[in-house]
Amino acid sequence: MTQSNEYAVIGKPTPKKEAQAKVTGGARFATDVYLRDMLWARVLRSPLPHARIVSIDTTKAKRLPGVMAVLTADDVPEARYGALVLDMGMFARGKVRYVGEAIAAVAAVDEETAARAVRLIEVEYEELPAVFDPLEAMRPDAPLVHENLPGYKTLFDRTRRAMTGNVNYQADIESGNVDEGFAQSDFVYEDTYEVQKQHPSYMEPNSTVAHLDEDGRLIVYNTTQRPHINQAILSSLLGIPISRIRVIPCHVGGGFGGKNRTLSEPTAAALALKTKRPVRLTFSHEEEFTSATTRHSAIIRMKTGVRKDGTLVATQVSLYYECGAYAPTPNAVWLGAISSSGPYRIPNARTEAFSVYTNKMMGGAFRGYGAPQSNFARESQMDRIARDLNIDPIELRLKNCLVPGDSLHTGQPLHSVRIKEALLRARDMAQWNTRRHDGNRALGVACGIFACGGFATSAVVKLHMDGTAFVATGAMDMGQGLRTVMAQIAAEELGMSADDVTVAIGDTDLTPFDVGIFGDRGTHTTGLAVQMAAADARQQLVAAAADAMGAKATNLELRDRTVIDRSTPGKMLHFRDVLGGGQYKKGGPIIGKASINPSDTPFDPKIVQGAASRMFSTYTFAVHIAEVEVERATGITRVPKVYAVHDCGTVINPAGLEGQIIGGLATGLGYALYEEVLIQNGQVQNPSFLECRPPTAVDMPAIEWDVVEEFDRKGPFGAKGVGNVSVINMAPAIANAVETITGVRVKSLPITAAKIVGGATAEEQ
Amino acid sequence: MTQSNEYAVIGKPTPKKEAQAKVTGGARFATDVYLRDMLWARVLRSPLPHARIVSIDTTKAKRLPGVMAVLTADDVPEARYGALVLDMGMFARGKVRYVGEAIAAVAAVDEETAARAVRLIEVEYEELPAVFDPLEAMRPDAPLVHENLPGYKTLFDRTRRAMTGNVNYQADIESGNVDEGFAQSDFVYEDTYEVQKQHPSYMEPNSTVAHLDEDGRLIVYNTTQRPHINQAILSSLLGIPISRIRVIPCHVGGGFGGKNRTLSEPTAAALALKTKRPVRLTFSHEEEFTSATTRHSAIIRMKTGVRKDGTLVATQVSLYYECGAYAPTPNAVWLGAISSSGPYRIPNARTEAFSVYTNKMMGGAFRGYGAPQSNFARESQMDRIARDLNIDPIELRLKNCLVPGDSLHTGQPLHSVRIKEALLRARDMAQWNTRRHDGNRALGVACGIFACGGFATSAVVKLHMDGTAFVATGAMDMGQGLRTVMAQIAAEELGMSADDVTVAIGDTDLTPFDVGIFGDRGTHTTGLAVQMAAADARQQLVAAAADAMGAKATNLELRDRTVIDRSTPGKMLHFRDVLGGGQYKKGGPIIGKASINPSDTPFDPKIVQGAASRMFSTYTFAVHIAEVEVERATGITRVPKVYAVHDCGTVINPAGLEGQIIGGLATGLGYALYEEVLIQNGQVQNPSFLECRPPTAVDMPAIEWDVVEEFDRKGPFGAKGVGNVSVINMAPAIANAVETITGVRVKSLPITAAKIVGGATAEEQ
Repeated sequence: MTQSNEYAVIGKPTPKKEAQAKVTGGARFATDVYLRDMLWARVLRSPLPHARIVSIDTTKAKRLPGVMAVLTADDVPEARYGALVLDMGMFARGKVRYVGEAIAAVAAVDEETAARAVRLIEVEYEELPAVFDPLEAMRPDAPLVHENLPGYKTLFDRTRRAMTGNVNYQADIESGNVDEGFAQSDFVYEDTYEVQKQHPSYMEPNSTVAHLDEDGRLIVYNTTQRPHINQAILSSLLGIPISRIRVIPCHVGGGFGGKNRTLSEPTAAALALKTKRPVRLTFSHEEEFTSATTRHSAIIRMKTGVRKDGTLVATQVSLYYECGAYAPTPNAVWLGAISSSGPYRIPNARTEAFSVYTNKMMGGAFRGYGAPQSNFARESQMDRIARDLNIDPIELRLKNCLVPGDSLHTGQPLHSVRIKEALLRARDMAQWNTRRHDGNRALGVACGIFACGGFATSAVVKLHMDGTAFVATGAMDMGQGLRTVMAQIAAEELGMSADDVTVAIGDTDLTPFDVGIFGDRGTHTTGLAVQMAAADARQQLVAAAADAMGAKATNLELRDRTVIDRSTPGKMLHFRDVLGGGQYKKGGPIIGKASINPSDTPFDPKIVQGAASRMFSTYTFAVHIAEVEVERATGITRVPKVYAVHDCGTVINPAGLEGQIIGGLATGLGYALYEEVLIQNGQVQNPSFLECRPPTAVDMPAIEWDVVEEFDRKGPFGAKGVGNVSVINMAPAIANAVETITGVRVKSLPITAAKIVGGATAEEQ
Repeated sequence: MTQSNEYAVIGKPTPKKEAQAKVTGGARFATDVYLRDMLWARVLRSPLPHARIVSIDTTKAKRLPGVMAVLTADDVPEARYGALVLDMGMFARGKVRYVGEAIAAVAAVDEETAARAVRLIEVEYEELPAVFDPLEAMRPDAPLVHENLPGYKTLFDRTRRAMTGNVNYQADIESGNVDEGFAQSDFVYEDTYEVQKQHPSYMEPNSTVAHLDEDGRLIVYNTTQRPHINQAILSSLLGIPISRIRVIPCHVGGGFGGKNRTLSEPTAAALALKTKRPVRLTFSHEEEFTSATTRHSAIIRMKTGVRKDGTLVATQVSLYYECGAYAPTPNAVWLGAISSSGPYRIPNARTEAFSVYTNKMMGGAFRGYGAPQSNFARESQMDRIARDLNIDPIELRLKNCLVPGDSLHTGQPLHSVRIKEALLRARDMAQWNTRRHDGNRALGVACGIFACGGFATSAVVKLHMDGTAFVATGAMDMGQGLRTVMAQIAAEELGMSADDVTVAIGDTDLTPFDVGIFGDRGTHTTGLAVQMAAADARQQLVAAAADAMGAKATNLELRDRTVIDRSTPGKMLHFRDVLGGGQYKKGGPIIGKASINPSDTPFDPKIVQGAASRMFSTYTFAVHIAEVEVERATGITRVPKVYAVHDCGTVINPAGLEGQIIGGLATGLGYALYEEVLIQNGQVQNPSFLECRPPTAVDMPAIEWDVVEEFDRKGPFGAKGVGNVSVINMAPAIANAVETITGVRVKSLPITAAKIVGGATAEEQ
């Protein structure tokens, strides 16, 4: 790994800012918030996947002593929220659309009373035909999950499309001429892949405490990745001006995308407004597994044409992502579409991507964010092609991978791409050429691309009189180490140590707007705003110092909170002496700010229809080689080792990066082998960690990792991202190794022992 | 009063933002802060005015069960703090300098245990000769209150002056040629006046709760006018970086200048650092009357030369302000010096002003801020002159008062002055010409000038997606209504209602730097920063709207959160529609900021030596006519009515202005008639509200008030200030009326019955 030696702070392993708080137990989570006179809330949830609500009788519940309020849809404004479609309300209104949907909520003096009251609510249903499969849901005669929605908006190309049955979002990407491409191909491969719902498995459930403060302002403590969006959604749902709401996020006990939501907040807030007392709503773990969000399950049809030398010529991809009963995160579908060509140069490429309603638990954001699905298909099929053409899988990838100067299939040119170097490095690390297959053990490779950065964000940096700094960013640290990275970025820019920088995150009074942490925009985009705000402060500081020192601003550099005149040895002034007077000098106190939206270039409508964003800032790449062992008789599969190589731009905090690589890999491993939220007739069959569990320490492979570092000119000090692309390779890499060992090509996830033992070999398929 | 009809929000009576919180009892004061495991602190205070500390034995105190810590000077860093002189530590070190000085502090599990522990601390003293009079303290052989201080800095002309004995600050102002002036005068009057210590009499005592948060940051809840300065002082006293400290001011139960201090915070913080538990220190009311700060008592020598027609020719003023054992607020002396010529044109003027140590309770900031003292002298002497020359007192003032184009005796030119109009208006209102004297009732007039605005401040304004706004200012609302005025200023600038604007004050994480609220800089200076920050946000909003609407920015105006194209009827766009997309458009979220220091012009050193500031932004003026009744036999004096006319620039909130006028007048009334902190041998004789009480509702006169409104180009929407000048006229106006009624000229405050009955008439003097 190339160490960034030119920086004082960037590239140095830095302990997390919140380490002390978390290790000592001082860290406050939403469930640690206890306010005087606080009430406890519980939610009545639908037992049926699709039914009209004939009546709701809350009389008995309301009469139970200790119950302070019972709310249903009739008690709250009719407003709905959502991303592209405003489809979801606080409670089911008129009908229920999935098992676990909220119908009513109770606030009572304690949790048991609230639970009892919930059981006293009487609901009369009239069952409706339900639909549980996305392809069936797309048929014209399928039951409609939603009627009469006013269409959906693709925010960034401003078109409003009518709903087509249960399709709530559609993107179409086409470059080149796919039909001609297939005609020119020597071989054409068609496969269908199926992938499952995977729960984000954060340890800390959704939890909110809401109350009205002394000024009558709504204050919300929660666990979230998107406090400013929570604030805006609460405003529109409850009819309160945004300035009269404050969201104070607590530490996040795991997010992984699953907390890029507004889920428990509106209900807690509505109950607080009703009772005029603090109200706490915490999901049970079971509710997490029925009524939160999972990764979208999907069906992927992939058809790829190649020349006999392995050159990719054409590809056609259909992505059918099942979003369940509501569509909070169509972005996942869009990002899956973007990643669907893989990190390859394919001159003729068409992708159609659909987000489809069914009467099931919702699909939403989860690390990988739509790309694990499409990449499982892409990287599985690549190995199928390699096997069929008798080309080494890595050689095949090297032949086709993107290089600087290439554009993606979406038409966006790439300015930062080192997938080739990453493949070569991974191949070396794993000793691929000599260790590829040995009996029940084999190496499997996969690589991937992920869109990185974008969307609006802002930052403010204040310099104190002693030269230490205070950074405010609306972004959230959900344990990934963002506060620490921000401190490093500001510290590098301002010539101080990361310890000199206090970083405030998320609190909507304390911080400026940010859309939320997802999609590898933490370091790359919110970090860029921090760098720019720090640069703004730096410029003011240098100007004040030039004035105070009688020096030329261009000769001044900053180090250890001291301004040094490069042109005159020994001539220096501590920030304190620039600022302590500076607070009383011309121009007043030093405040830097930055407000950016680095995604304001629209996609070419000739190539992309239905874009759910504008062009992303950059792209990240990764290669994973999984060393896999399969017990042939049982199909039990183990992954003793993984080699991971990332193209993530400049590494800001190597300690944090390692955590990100390992964590993403773990999620990918669980996706590949262990996890599936099983739903039958709309009912979640395994709603707990006991039955649906992510990998534990025992399951984790040894990991050897490296980066192919390169400065990305659009990122702060050249950084890109890593959180999502670290997830998307494990499943196909493992599937590829499994086929090498067993001859069985598993085309659905998870790769279970049963599928291996009962599976068809490639020849049989 | 001229109503400002051209504005939507400015000039409209607006209820206070915190009204609901205060009326419902929800408002949180520092004494309402209860943290788990909180300890209670009490302070050991010196019983002697001047003594060497031979030894301190805290053993017994430490052994008392329930005592968690005992600190003395030896347990804390040696650092000192102060304004121009760094003279004060957390505890007395080496010797005590006044009765009531802190020597040690205890933190215990409850207040009684802490109090008992304090009594168990054994201190051995060696008494030293003490000095109790400022003129005696200035003698070369006087006991030195402080030895070996490294001089004091006059920050703004950067000179460091050596200490001259007990003089810790000196200012000299001289314009013209005073000796020639006296030579040219027809009459010369010399008088000496004496004024007393007056306590700010806020209801809420000094109180702090300090603790370490989960990240080990020092968090301080307090009652203060200067949170950012508190933060900086805590940093330097405790050796903690400023970024590792957060001050969260609570509602202030009265400040009046007395809370422009750092007093209880360091002790509470030091105990919290020592015990690692939250610590609360609340002063008792008795401690308020011994160990907080009062208005400086003073001796004023005034010599004025006039022509026989009443034209003022020359004046020489010596101000001896007694600051007690430490000098937290030399600015009071400086501002007294600035006001010492009154609002008059005096071509030859010299003022020397001294801040002098004595072994008594400290003098500090209190509304009026040094000017009540000098103005009592000036306005008393003006009436002496009027009486002697047989000129009507108002005519005398009209003849000499400043007009636009004049400069003050300090050399600063005035751009906004309507004292003449104010005198004329007051004369009309009071029917002065016909009602001036009738037996035991008479009218007395006084007018005054006060420096307004200046010093560093900053503000940040955020626009939410629905167009509502969030304003952050480091300034404090101490009940004077600053939050409300800020909301009005931002609302006017941004085309919305004051209800649409949430204002955050004081919290040092949440707000940008401000030096503190004093000296009429709240509306005029911190409000200006808010206006500028709002204008910054406005400009971005208009640019985004012009883009969205296809309009010219210059044609756009803002009203009711809507952007209206003046050139095209019906063409408008709600802020929501500009911004909701705006968060995702070019330029990102809208943040306005402003950072100013509107006092960066130094005084001319040929005129002013020892300036404690740079030139002020502007000046405010007021005229008070007091209708006074004196019971001749007893000397009992009542003030049934007062006429007040203010020149305060544009009136932003008439409801708030009225409160300010009445409140200042009440303080001036108490100063004139009722209040005196009596000290004998350094011991406060009347340390409670029972014995030293401000006016109550029963004592208050009927008040008729008006303003002579004019736009001051340096203030937000033309506003100046009113808080200080409302105090400084009452004492001389009452003294003047008393002389009219009784023939007795009282030249010391308060004007007691005894002084009237036993007093000398002018002839006798």
